[in-house]
Amino acid sequence: MPSDIQASVLHGARDLRVEARQLPEPASDEVQVAVQMTGLCGSDLHYFRHFRNGTIEVREPLTLGHESAGVVVAVGQNDSSASSLKVGDRVALEVGLPCEVCDLCRGGRYNLCRGMSFRSSAKAFPHAQGTLQDRINHPARWCHKLPETLSLEYGALVEPLSVAIHARNRAALKSGSTVLVLGAGAVGLLCAAVSKVAGAKTVVIADILEERVKFAVDNGFADVAFTVPTSNPRPESVEDKLAYAQDLAEKLKSLKAREGADAVGEVNATKPGGKIMIIGMGMPVQTLPIMAASLKEVDLVGVFRYANAYREAIELLASRNPVLPDLLKLVTHRFRGLDDVPHAFETAAKVKDEKGNLVIKVMVDMTQ
Amino acid sequence: MPSDIQASVLHGARDLRVEARQLPEPASDEVQVAVQMTGLCGSDLHYFRHFRNGTIEVREPLTLGHESAGVVVAVGQNDSSASSLKVGDRVALEVGLPCEVCDLCRGGRYNLCRGMSFRSSAKAFPHAQGTLQDRINHPARWCHKLPETLSLEYGALVEPLSVAIHARNRAALKSGSTVLVLGAGAVGLLCAAVSKVAGAKTVVIADILEERVKFAVDNGFADVAFTVPTSNPRPESVEDKLAYAQDLAEKLKSLKAREGADAVGEVNATKPGGKIMIIGMGMPVQTLPIMAASLKEVDLVGVFRYANAYREAIELLASRNPVLPDLLKLVTHRFRGLDDVPHAFETAAKVKDEKGNLVIKVMVDMTQ
Amino acid sequence: MPSDIQASVLHGARDLRVEARQLPEPASDEVQVAVQMTGLCGSDLHYFRHFRNGTIEVREPLTLGHESAGVVVAVGQNDSSASSLKVGDRVALEVGLPCEVCDLCRGGRYNLCRGMSFRSSAKAFPHAQGTLQDRINHPARWCHKLPETLSLEYGALVEPLSVAIHARNRAALKSGSTVLVLGAGAVGLLCAAVSKVAGAKTVVIADILEERVKFAVDNGFADVAFTVPTSNPRPESVEDKLAYAQDLAEKLKSLKAREGADAVGEVNATKPGGKIMIIGMGMPVQTLPIMAASLKEVDLVGVFRYANAYREAIELLASRNPVLPDLLKLVTHRFRGLDDVPHAFETAAKVKDEKGNLVIKVMVDMTQ
Amino acid sequence: MPSDIQASVLHGARDLRVEARQLPEPASDEVQVAVQMTGLCGSDLHYFRHFRNGTIEVREPLTLGHESAGVVVAVGQNDSSASSLKVGDRVALEVGLPCEVCDLCRGGRYNLCRGMSFRSSAKAFPHAQGTLQDRINHPARWCHKLPETLSLEYGALVEPLSVAIHARNRAALKSGSTVLVLGAGAVGLLCAAVSKVAGAKTVVIADILEERVKFAVDNGFADVAFTVPTSNPRPESVEDKLAYAQDLAEKLKSLKAREGADAVGEVNATKPGGKIMIIGMGMPVQTLPIMAASLKEVDLVGVFRYANAYREAIELLASRNPVLPDLLKLVTHRFRGLDDVPHAFETAAKVKDEKGNLVIKVMVDMTQ
Repeated sequence: MPSDIQASVLHGARDLRVEARQLPEPASDEVQVAVQMTGLCGSDLHYFRHFRNGTIEVREPLTLGHESAGVVVAVGQNDSSASSLKVGDRVALEVGLPCEVCDLCRGGRYNLCRGMSFRSSAKAFPHAQGTLQDRINHPARWCHKLPETLSLEYGALVEPLSVAIHARNRAALKSGSTVLVLGAGAVGLLCAAVSKVAGAKTVVIADILEERVKFAVDNGFADVAFTVPTSNPRPESVEDKLAYAQDLAEKLKSLKAREGADAVGEVNATKPGGKIMIIGMGMPVQTLPIMAASLKEVDLVGVFRYANAYREAIELLASRNPVLPDLLKLVTHRFRGLDDVPHAFETAAKVKDEKGNLVIKVMVDMTQ
Repeated sequence: MPSDIQASVLHGARDLRVEARQLPEPASDEVQVAVQMTGLCGSDLHYFRHFRNGTIEVREPLTLGHESAGVVVAVGQNDSSASSLKVGDRVALEVGLPCEVCDLCRGGRYNLCRGMSFRSSAKAFPHAQGTLQDRINHPARWCHKLPETLSLEYGALVEPLSVAIHARNRAALKSGSTVLVLGAGAVGLLCAAVSKVAGAKTVVIADILEERVKFAVDNGFADVAFTVPTSNPRPESVEDKLAYAQDLAEKLKSLKAREGADAVGEVNATKPGGKIMIIGMGMPVQTLPIMAASLKEVDLVGVFRYANAYREAIELLASRNPVLPDLLKLVTHRFRGLDDVPHAFETAAKVKDEKGNLVIKVMVDMTQ
Repeated sequence: MPSDIQASVLHGARDLRVEARQLPEPASDEVQVAVQMTGLCGSDLHYFRHFRNGTIEVREPLTLGHESAGVVVAVGQNDSSASSLKVGDRVALEVGLPCEVCDLCRGGRYNLCRGMSFRSSAKAFPHAQGTLQDRINHPARWCHKLPETLSLEYGALVEPLSVAIHARNRAALKSGSTVLVLGAGAVGLLCAAVSKVAGAKTVVIADILEERVKFAVDNGFADVAFTVPTSNPRPESVEDKLAYAQDLAEKLKSLKAREGADAVGEVNATKPGGKIMIIGMGMPVQTLPIMAASLKEVDLVGVFRYANAYREAIELLASRNPVLPDLLKLVTHRFRGLDDVPHAFETAAKVKDEKGNLVIKVMVDMTQ
Repeated sequence: MPSDIQASVLHGARDLRVEARQLPEPASDEVQVAVQMTGLCGSDLHYFRHFRNGTIEVREPLTLGHESAGVVVAVGQNDSSASSLKVGDRVALEVGLPCEVCDLCRGGRYNLCRGMSFRSSAKAFPHAQGTLQDRINHPARWCHKLPETLSLEYGALVEPLSVAIHARNRAALKSGSTVLVLGAGAVGLLCAAVSKVAGAKTVVIADILEERVKFAVDNGFADVAFTVPTSNPRPESVEDKLAYAQDLAEKLKSLKAREGADAVGEVNATKPGGKIMIIGMGMPVQTLPIMAASLKEVDLVGVFRYANAYREAIELLASRNPVLPDLLKLVTHRFRGLDDVPHAFETAAKVKDEKGNLVIKVMVDMTQ
């Protein structure tokens, strides 16, 4: 029997409304999950601010949110023994549903599946609705059970942590490497933390905002902080970006004159044979010193979301690895209930809040 | 006892002179080689035309040439048993001498050695003189013996073939792949041939010059030819390059709608999870659709010269692999003797010669 | 509406009976395939001769056969657009059905799935029935469409060819390698052929039967043949096996004194840093010169069936690659109809038939 | 001018004598090192006890020792800028000198070089003398400078630590893996420690000696200890080894029922797609469940000494990585001066000393 739920629905730029929806019973391979904790991500923010994300336009009302954990409240008839979830289980949602049949899916790279239906993304139509709603039906096989030691807030961090784990896998990051992370936002900080867990010798983090790199080092996410002064606080132009890179390269050189960084870096700052990870979406067309990349055989490695990373993310969060900083420190702001979602997004849109505190990860708490 | 030799020496743009030099006896670990066959390469041509190569300026008179084979005419006292060359042996010269001690050398990537001394390059100073001279002393361990079945002209092709083999190694090219090669010059054609040998399913080659792609397919270097019309015969501007890429992507799509190419390609034309090899030197800063690369997890892989490729290049040339086209077909123009080197370079500078024939590889024959 | 079919059913060692069965309509994600061509495999033969395969006992009547191609005769209601098969399509059956949910399946290694249901294997219970029956219902997503240029006999070779392709993938076989294949049965010959396609410099094949290695070289599967004399035609004891290996190593050494083979070989005959592929099932416990493997850093790489190989197998068969020998030459014996299956198995059990001809692959033709 | 030194020289089983030798001045590419700290290794012990190591016989008086650190006391004339060592520098000796010319050396796998001259090994003749002598001449490029923060005792641990780092490289060990180490001797403990640094989720260590696995867990080398009872304290027979393995597999199963271990393990205890590292020398011929390895695609990966690992070993020792246990805890026994070397070896030959304390690593201190 369908039930009534409330959802936060985006109708236009900065136009979020709480609306009633009908939720059917979970299908035979689904569970119904009461969503309780959702982190806001940069792509959500793009949709919120512009009703689009890069070239992707929203074409129908869209519920945002995809970094979520919750509690199973109903189980479909046919939930396979492989997942064997039951009512009351706490789960992290893996919200991208690939076709599971194509060569990319069968080959272990389901994140690249052309048939991917990813919640809160407007790429496919009809859009796959996001998790900022009371309850949701989701295939049981894409719900990952959380151990009792992990709170749901940690559960909501499994998604962005999976991005960092996937980046590390793509980098084939070796223990003992030097890592340079550009950008000390949530994903950058998670990449730094995952690099440290993987045995990186030195993790350097760079950002234009001094508070962010200070936060990174003070909280054990990175070993060395670089602040790169720019005239423009958001280097959008090619010239600004190149100036930024050049500045970085020189600073890194002063640190490790002989080597340069191994990974997650920038061409001029990368050592011969090193790798540069391109994580997520920047500008559609970018200017790169390709000749330098070729001369040094530096590889540029694209990283898109994640595949096969949730289990490790959960295990890592549950571990007592002394190298792992407490990832809850990333959650700088918390909001409560669907009515507060617009406020949460307005905060997420800022680099610092009105009190001058850093904004890193904004969490929406939907527990009752 | 030193001996007198003649060398072709570059004193300025288009100012090549044949001059006498004194050659000492070979050092204990060297052999003296009578250079007999030298192919001209794009970097030689840059020096010839501009007295510089990109940002590297020539700072003293420089002998060009580095694609060479010759005959051993003297052996140093201490030539190790590892090479055991003797007078009369025919060898291909590997002209880049790395330090052999640094981490990159010991780690198998000596092409990236910062201490590399590469003949005919003006990067180090004093410059390592090139091979366009009668005789040369070279470490025995960097001379690769040619089997009797291979002519010295094949021997001079070992160097550019090694670039293609190294690119294939860096690509970790899998049998059964679809390969798109951009540019049907000598290196592009060799990459195409090496891809076919490695079991590529389909090799597509693209160029703005119809004759070149026709040559490629007619002579068994590639399976499919694409000519990309551009207003400008050499797409130097970013706009021209993007138009070229877009055109290619659409044509390739019509061929293999579902897939895109696996390697040696261009971002928009590359399938998810594929690779793009960046071989040699293009423009110092280039505009790339980085977002597309990230979304599809397409890797951009830098390729610089070669390491550990000469033996395989020689074995491949000596094999009777029916998939390998006859690489001598690449040698479209031959010149004889040091006095004819300027003429050889003027020809190499052209896309077609005065009779309208394609210019691919120009060979300087220095046999007496 | 269910329909009546005939199946070849094994009730005990060498006790094959043709029996009537009822076949339901295909489920929503299935197609119904008229099986028309089935190759017999070594594991089928084990079941036929012993009613068991190694430690796996048959526990209920079992239809054998899993190297099959056929024609789609009915399509389930929900066949996804991903496969979009229609009546009349000719398909190769991929008969192993993994769970598609576990980490191994999602990670691209579905051949290792613990929930695998593989037709004609008695490992799971109830057993997944094999393909030696008139018609069969099979998930559309595990049926691979054959191009019009390929006969169904080629289609039945897709399965064993996939084993060889998977072995090559696991070996990460590089173009230019030397390959030693031990055993010139169908799988060994296919591994040899696939190695040649992948650009192997030299493929050496060894067997105790001179006719088999002669067949291999005469038909273009390998370059060099070695016959290894043993007192015992099937070296089952450890001593015989070591003698065989030692003999091989010395012969190979005479061929390539400096190197040894790169892959698909035997420890003492393998070059430092090389690989040995362990394909399929030999004796449950085997004696290996582990110290030699360690001293030379030779890796022993297990290969079990295949994953993500069918498409490439079909494309390879359809290609006109001049390096690929005609794989139909492997089909030395053909039998017609289910009644002739016992005769087919008795032939497959022999090394040579009564006329003295080699038995390599026995095919059961079930076209009407 | 040659100088007089004292050396510990092995003349037969358990026949070690301190003898005077003449040491020439260092050659142009060498430094002279006053050896000050040397750890004893299992291969040294084999030579000491049997005057042979496996099949390798000692053919002339042999100085043992190859895990050494010391102080530079003289520098050859031509020490290249690449090493730039000076008198007073403290160095760890990399005592294996490869040919530096062959394909394996140039390809980054110099540990497999057929021309390797390894100090204290009797494989080559004349034997390369070991480090248990006052001073030694060694190529500067194979001496690795120690930072001031590291004592020479840490310096002597660089060699065995490099074995563990090389094993991790060969395993391509991923962060988040489960690792099972068989044997809790010095190399096993170092492998465990290196696995933890590389982010292993769980490191299980197994040994027949309860004190050893307790030592491992108490001192932070491993997370979980397994003691495997055997009737025979050193399982030499195939039956004992299989019983041991079976016991282990069951215990591991009880820990992680679903998975098995990823690496450094044993076939039956290894998860599908996992790896088994074969480190160092065991019995020349060993019985392995090869069928199981194949069915699960478990790879057996040979590991021989190390290549390109010293720098990382030194950096790791100098780091303050909180996951790394204090490796000095491995040094359970110290002896002083060449006269005490026989006593040191007799101690190293024991599992526990006369007081019942574990013997793990025995160090010979040769500081004056």
